[in-house]
Amino acid sequence: MAAAARDGELVLLPLGGAGEIGMNFNAYGFGPPHERRWIVVDCGVLFGRETTTPGVDVIMPDIRFLAEQRENVLAIVLTHAHEDHIGAIAHLWPQLGCPLYATPFTARLIEGKLDEAGLSDRVRVRQVPLGGHVGIGPFEIDFISITHSIPEPNALAIRTPLGVVVHTGDWKLDPEPMLGAATDENALKTLGDAGVLATVCDSTNALVSGTSGSEARVRQSLTELIGTLKGRVAVTAFASNVARLDTVAKAARAHGREIALVGRSMHKMFAAARETGYQSDFPATLDEAEAAQLPPRRVLYLCTGSQGEPRAALPRVAAGDHPNVSLGRGDAVIFSSRIIPGNELAIFELHNKLAALGVEVLTEQDHFVHVSGHPCRDELAEMYRWTRPQIAVPVHGELRHMSEHARLARALQVPQAVVVQNGLMLRLAPGRAEIIDEVPSGRIHLDGRVLVAEGAGFARARRALGYAGMIAITLVLNDKGRVVADPSLIIDGIPEPIHAAIRTAAEEAIRRHNPRRGDEEKLKENVRRAARRAAADAWGKKPVTRVEVAWV
Amino acid sequence: MAAAARDGELVLLPLGGAGEIGMNFNAYGFGPPHERRWIVVDCGVLFGRETTTPGVDVIMPDIRFLAEQRENVLAIVLTHAHEDHIGAIAHLWPQLGCPLYATPFTARLIEGKLDEAGLSDRVRVRQVPLGGHVGIGPFEIDFISITHSIPEPNALAIRTPLGVVVHTGDWKLDPEPMLGAATDENALKTLGDAGVLATVCDSTNALVSGTSGSEARVRQSLTELIGTLKGRVAVTAFASNVARLDTVAKAARAHGREIALVGRSMHKMFAAARETGYQSDFPATLDEAEAAQLPPRRVLYLCTGSQGEPRAALPRVAAGDHPNVSLGRGDAVIFSSRIIPGNELAIFELHNKLAALGVEVLTEQDHFVHVSGHPCRDELAEMYRWTRPQIAVPVHGELRHMSEHARLARALQVPQAVVVQNGLMLRLAPGRAEIIDEVPSGRIHLDGRVLVAEGAGFARARRALGYAGMIAITLVLNDKGRVVADPSLIIDGIPEPIHAAIRTAAEEAIRRHNPRRGDEEKLKENVRRAARRAAADAWGKKPVTRVEVAWV
Repeated sequence: MAAAARDGELVLLPLGGAGEIGMNFNAYGFGPPHERRWIVVDCGVLFGRETTTPGVDVIMPDIRFLAEQRENVLAIVLTHAHEDHIGAIAHLWPQLGCPLYATPFTARLIEGKLDEAGLSDRVRVRQVPLGGHVGIGPFEIDFISITHSIPEPNALAIRTPLGVVVHTGDWKLDPEPMLGAATDENALKTLGDAGVLATVCDSTNALVSGTSGSEARVRQSLTELIGTLKGRVAVTAFASNVARLDTVAKAARAHGREIALVGRSMHKMFAAARETGYQSDFPATLDEAEAAQLPPRRVLYLCTGSQGEPRAALPRVAAGDHPNVSLGRGDAVIFSSRIIPGNELAIFELHNKLAALGVEVLTEQDHFVHVSGHPCRDELAEMYRWTRPQIAVPVHGELRHMSEHARLARALQVPQAVVVQNGLMLRLAPGRAEIIDEVPSGRIHLDGRVLVAEGAGFARARRALGYAGMIAITLVLNDKGRVVADPSLIIDGIPEPIHAAIRTAAEEAIRRHNPRRGDEEKLKENVRRAARRAAADAWGKKPVTRVEVAWV
Repeated sequence: MAAAARDGELVLLPLGGAGEIGMNFNAYGFGPPHERRWIVVDCGVLFGRETTTPGVDVIMPDIRFLAEQRENVLAIVLTHAHEDHIGAIAHLWPQLGCPLYATPFTARLIEGKLDEAGLSDRVRVRQVPLGGHVGIGPFEIDFISITHSIPEPNALAIRTPLGVVVHTGDWKLDPEPMLGAATDENALKTLGDAGVLATVCDSTNALVSGTSGSEARVRQSLTELIGTLKGRVAVTAFASNVARLDTVAKAARAHGREIALVGRSMHKMFAAARETGYQSDFPATLDEAEAAQLPPRRVLYLCTGSQGEPRAALPRVAAGDHPNVSLGRGDAVIFSSRIIPGNELAIFELHNKLAALGVEVLTEQDHFVHVSGHPCRDELAEMYRWTRPQIAVPVHGELRHMSEHARLARALQVPQAVVVQNGLMLRLAPGRAEIIDEVPSGRIHLDGRVLVAEGAGFARARRALGYAGMIAITLVLNDKGRVVADPSLIIDGIPEPIHAAIRTAAEEAIRRHNPRRGDEEKLKENVRRAARRAAADAWGKKPVTRVEVAWV
């Protein structure tokens, strides 16, 4: 290893998450250029949106750079089980084919995903105990317990011959997390005392001053709030926030309410938590139908759908089409969650539907019912005080978060703070940190069941179709190039009163054409332009217009 | 009028704005049913979004109920010049054909719109002085000065033989508005002392506690903030907030910065303000090109684009394609504006682009650089204390705002608070307030240049096209019903590798067909299903699929 240390370099290559909150994918490479060996930290998705990426449910990083050297990719190490950290494994693992490392709760959820994808025979998930250690080629990795909004969040201390990197994963400092251990401050301080090369750190809340707050305070506040409510209560929260589920259940029991879980991922997360030893004292739950029999003041529903996802539990309840749960005047819904940016309109629409039913809506806007799982500025400062790195590398953020995070790190006297972006290779050692390369990167959309590069032609075409509709014209020509039938016009997404003008223009262009075999390209183009211009003149928009020929 | 008072009713019919913040359109009717005479208060648009209503720039109310009795519609009265109150006039006026009433600044902007629409010869805008009065049939209307975020906001006291309605328009209570008069508290209190039947009131901030704050404090804070900045400064604000433009200009001058207006609506609003006597002491402005010659610390740009609108000034600057303005490291942008819900992603994208240029982004999140123009809960309480109505009618809000507003009004001991929705006719007098009818209502989209009902078939079709693309197939048949050419397949918005399977399936369905004249509908349906199923099998999505026949 001494030779490697002399000749080699330690590099960080983010392929996802340095530019967005989501699809986290960070590769660490060690060795001389062209012989680097890699580990990947996290392999997550970004969620698509009906509005901005119609027809695309999930988005993931383009990892072809690593796929091309898969024999040198030693492992994927997962910090925790949120979808933006593990959601792409089943889609991208086949390109890398390496072992996975995770702590038990995370491993349990990954195995579920691999199972659904029919990959569980081929992939091995190696369990690492909490606070455990693994050696992977030149990388010696300590798992350090930290706090976040899911069971078993881990920071990683990645030891290499050229120095130690603290990769924080997603974290916050919760002195009373209510589930799992508190942050292992000592481990972080000890690393800092011994000397940390780089801290690669969560930027989500770099624009938010103060601290994120503790789950214990949410528990107290939610318990008080639920005590004031008389009718049915539904609480919606992120299902993976198992401590929050526990908080809500305890608050319900404190006021004699029975709990029913509503929504598929509620049940799934709860089962995973149970199987891995969490939630052993969670109160017994009722099923939805039993709960509906209870008097309103004796029931509390724990629901999915806090982001307004149309097929999740609460939006279905609000739309009046849930089979077992209904809410009305005198009932209340507590949103024990934040609004993920971009989901505002869907969530407000959900609030409006609940208001129409006479249901009272209580949110973090007016009540202390949620705390973030990510570090605010005072917590970031604490992390830098503990680890005192030579280099700060903000990740897990959009540029606005990472830029501000870097500004903060510099203000805290970290010697170097480097804003990276997906696809930029940052040399951490030896020497001053520096961007030394740029590799292919980007976003891959899961469109239906097909993985396609973002901005692929057909996807851009769909945007145009959604904006201005389509005119598809077929001309029927004989082998002399003569038009021998009325053209077929298939028009979709265009106001009815415009159709006649389009047809007339197309027919007129055909009539003007002087038929000669071989001129059909010119004819097609003339018809295309005439039809498109007729639409633009009458309507003000230019539809996608295509013309083909059928030869008889 | 005594007979009308005996036999007639006073009704409120909102056709827009009772269910959304936007497209405000409230009709007041007086007289016996079937002989009601109407006035309309405000006639605004809601803005479409690229994401949720692609291809639709503006949305307005369906007013066919009033259009069918246009001879009884006496006037449209405009409270102020925001687009969500006047933006639909040029589109909808032809359906009503009645006079318009507005104060001078509002009238000036309406006239500009009518001019652009080629309507200025036909429409008369009758100017009402500030604090003025007009009689329109059975309605006697006082204009009452109030404060908001545009010059000349007015509440209306609508006097009828059955009582007085206070229609607040958009308002806040700003003790130091910095432009125009403060709220005419005395007029409102005097109305309350004499007895108010109903207060029809702005709900925008009914979920926000406290007060909205004064422009004077923004002026002080912005002046201090700009004093700390060394490079170029750009401030983006709503162009119609003329007091804010003045605030920014004064703050710039206080630190020796010259001002340049950037963006079309900045110039337009500024001109309207000048022409109607506002902004007489606004500092001289430079043009963009002159400003670019100054040292960075001597310049301040006042830009459009606070909502991330792609063609507005600041987004173009951030994208590096503005002809005269560029920003970079050491410069700062102040967002002196709020985020309109639904614009989050566009605005954050703008922040990210500015961060990529090294520009510091300052927002109301961290600095006191904006106050809302709408009443928070303490201000609403004040309004009800002054006017003490028998009936509170929340308008100008989504259901969640109006419901909470009604709850607040009841808590303030207003005897009746009624949540209305577009198209519901509320009888205000005589007797207890009551919904007595429902009339046709809805949203009309300006799609290109064509007005169409929301949810029209072709618009829904576009959604489907944007989601899963299109297959347009033309079969060529002879008069015996025999297929005589290869089918024409026009495929758009579908991944290339799927196309072959679609073609094969279509051809296979044609081969299986037993030709007989008259069976072409069955053939078309078989081909359509086969093609669609092939796409679904290979891709997981079902494209819009249409089949036509060309006869030779």
